Amino acid sequence: MDSYVTSVVSRLQMLYTSDHSSVVSMNLFVALLCTCIVIGHLLEENRWMNESITALIIGVCTGVVILLISGGRSSRLLVFSEDLFFIYLLPPIIFNAGFQVKKKQFFRNFITIMLYGAVGTLICCCVISVGATLAFKKMDIGSLDVGDYLGIFVTSTFFVVSILSFSQSLVLLCCYFPAIGAIFAATDSVCTLQVLNQDETPLLYSLVFGEGVVNDATSVVLFNAIQSFDLSHISPRIAGQFVGSFLYLFFTSTMLGVFTGLLTAYIIKKLYFGRHSTDREVALMMLMAYLSYMLAELFYLSGILTVFFCGIVMSHYAWHNVTESSRVTTKHAFATLSFVAEIFIFLYVGMDALDIEKWSFVSDSPGTSIAVSSVLLALVLIGRAAFVFPLSFVSNLSKKSANEKIGFKQQIIIWWAGLMRGAVSMALAYNKVI
Amino acid sequence: MDSYVTSVVSRLQMLYTSDHSSVVSMNLFVALLCTCIVIGHLLEENRWMNESITALIIGVCTGVVILLISGGRSSRLLVFSEDLFFIYLLPPIIFNAGFQVKKKQFFRNFITIMLYGAVGTLICCCVISVGATLAFKKMDIGSLDVGDYLGIFVTSTFFVVSILSFSQSLVLLCCYFPAIGAIFAATDSVCTLQVLNQDETPLLYSLVFGEGVVNDATSVVLFNAIQSFDLSHISPRIAGQFVGSFLYLFFTSTMLGVFTGLLTAYIIKKLYFGRHSTDREVALMMLMAYLSYMLAELFYLSGILTVFFCGIVMSHYAWHNVTESSRVTTKHAFATLSFVAEIFIFLYVGMDALDIEKWSFVSDSPGTSIAVSSVLLALVLIGRAAFVFPLSFVSNLSKKSANEKIGFKQQIIIWWAGLMRGAVSMALAYNKVI
Repeated sequence: MDSYVTSVVSRLQMLYTSDHSSVVSMNLFVALLCTCIVIGHLLEENRWMNESITALIIGVCTGVVILLISGGRSSRLLVFSEDLFFIYLLPPIIFNAGFQVKKKQFFRNFITIMLYGAVGTLICCCVISVGATLAFKKMDIGSLDVGDYLGIFVTSTFFVVSILSFSQSLVLLCCYFPAIGAIFAATDSVCTLQVLNQDETPLLYSLVFGEGVVNDATSVVLFNAIQSFDLSHISPRIAGQFVGSFLYLFFTSTMLGVFTGLLTAYIIKKLYFGRHSTDREVALMMLMAYLSYMLAELFYLSGILTVFFCGIVMSHYAWHNVTESSRVTTKHAFATLSFVAEIFIFLYVGMDALDIEKWSFVSDSPGTSIAVSSVLLALVLIGRAAFVFPLSFVSNLSKKSANEKIGFKQQIIIWWAGLMRGAVSMALAYNKVI
Repeated sequence: MDSYVTSVVSRLQMLYTSDHSSVVSMNLFVALLCTCIVIGHLLEENRWMNESITALIIGVCTGVVILLISGGRSSRLLVFSEDLFFIYLLPPIIFNAGFQVKKKQFFRNFITIMLYGAVGTLICCCVISVGATLAFKKMDIGSLDVGDYLGIFVTSTFFVVSILSFSQSLVLLCCYFPAIGAIFAATDSVCTLQVLNQDETPLLYSLVFGEGVVNDATSVVLFNAIQSFDLSHISPRIAGQFVGSFLYLFFTSTMLGVFTGLLTAYIIKKLYFGRHSTDREVALMMLMAYLSYMLAELFYLSGILTVFFCGIVMSHYAWHNVTESSRVTTKHAFATLSFVAEIFIFLYVGMDALDIEKWSFVSDSPGTSIAVSSVLLALVLIGRAAFVFPLSFVSNLSKKSANEKIGFKQQIIIWWAGLMRGAVSMALAYNKVI
């Protein structure tokens, strides 16, 4: 009996010890999140600083400290898993974006957004694919290296690769020129909520943000297309299938989001939850929004599109059926969740900038890495230019008043802002490629 | 290069497939949570039904369906890990309890609560330890079986064992007599929020709930004491150390919670977040509360006590420094989180009631299992009776008005309610013992 007791005790102790190191890192992470919020608030007067950039810088500093303490073994506190990002962090960010977006502006520019998001991404993808193939053949890179980059390239489609280069250059910039890295990071599509002001520049805001959302659907289609279609022999039939597949994905994702939103509104109206409790209403809205995202993932649709439209429909219908206190609660609770999730991502990215494995890869062949990164970055710039300016011209033709047209300055911002996709794309790049 | 592309594609496909089964179960779980909320709302008129019981029953039904579909292999959707419970589900429940508790009532009965929680638990533990040792010696159980039960017993202390028996009997009851199981489950200390009404029976509510919170600190002390002290030779010195250890744990945990709460209030007041954003205030309160819990775990204190007092202090100080919309948001957002976490636990427990492994153990030796379970249940009843009635008598001696005294009916409710610890204890029992 004694030995049994001893074994139980030792098993429990082991459990306790293994938990303890993760408790330490959780503590540090939560404390850092709090610090970011406080410092971000103090620096709010500063034009180029916000919570995201503070989080990035604090992350880098913490990374240095951890690197020194651990004797150069690791700079990370938590392992960034795809699940963590796609299941916990992304849905609240996108749902909140849909929930708080100015619906009038968004739908007024719907056609332009679709042009950018669908046609534009396709053009950009072609430009980069052709350009990269030519450039790598010309450059003096071993065939394995080219294969390396092209393998990544073909598989993960334009969307991810544009980020790979950005992410690598950001890492370089963040370490040597924090200020420049900060400016770069600030112009991403998720953080347009912070940098572009929805009230001051509604047109720009809805264009940049809308493109980011539609872009996701396109990237899912491209990803599936490259896997299932034989793109080496492009025929009209395959192109037709491709377009059909995109339209199917776009409409089913949207419909799923709209349906879930309407269902929630109906349930809340029919059962009249408010009579009894605000908590039930809020819980139901939260869970249904989450369910829409997970359902989309279940059917291999674009969860981002679904939860975005679910947010729009909920803010338009369900939100008006609930009690006053539920309205205040949902508005701020969703914004808070999204806010914390964004800071979390930036904090992690900052910490990860010093990751040893990634740097050992760069230091093995510094010349090649920098060359490939800069070629890709240049191609992304060219690729985006190849669709933003022509498509803006097309879009302007259909607009009558000068106020609605997209000016040249605004086109440059769209070209530049879309390049840096920020939190979402960094996370994608981390898991799909590196 | 082709082979490289193929390998990347297949790796990504594998990733996708392995994710998909967890996506299916997440979907089902979220959908079930929504169903529980809607059905719980519809059944609200019914006295014996609430969300918890609905969740329990729906969980059992789902378990049956999964059992049939999987061909008798498993009845669970998610594996219940200790981390999931202690890191995500428990903190919001306890914090919300502290945040919403009627502070006046709680502190008026503070001495009585301490009597029940500290002295009472100790008495109960002694009664059960002695009783179980005698009973198992008398019963015709193989020495290994006794060792089995005693090993579990000594290691996990009274707190967990009282639940082990309850949990097993609940499983039996839930399956054969859902109605009785439901009544049992309804009288737990976390769900006093739902069954006992804080406004109608403030004295009872604060006593039952307060005992549950202090009980946690006692159980942590008992657990550590049995591991580190040589309890077979109880001397005044060891007893003194034991009491000192309890007082140390109780005061440091409380102080940590109070300190974190005051710090949050100070930061919010000093920086005047409200001028800029409600989201920052809410995020900071949420993160600081969570930080207090994690800090307590870090220093091996009682996280439950800490986050409970943090909730009390925040609702008393920080809550009055924030803007009106932050007040509404925090009040309802915390309640919603706690609400969802509770339903989640009950849903899981219901699903787990049909777990094959547990039942195969019971069916191997049905007589012994039932005998041991009922002996333990009886001992817990006797043990609780041994401290509730004498201590209530002591407490009543110090009260002057008849209104403040604890009546005999109320004593019976305390005796009975404390027996069934509900969601929290079930989760503890799952992980520490079974």
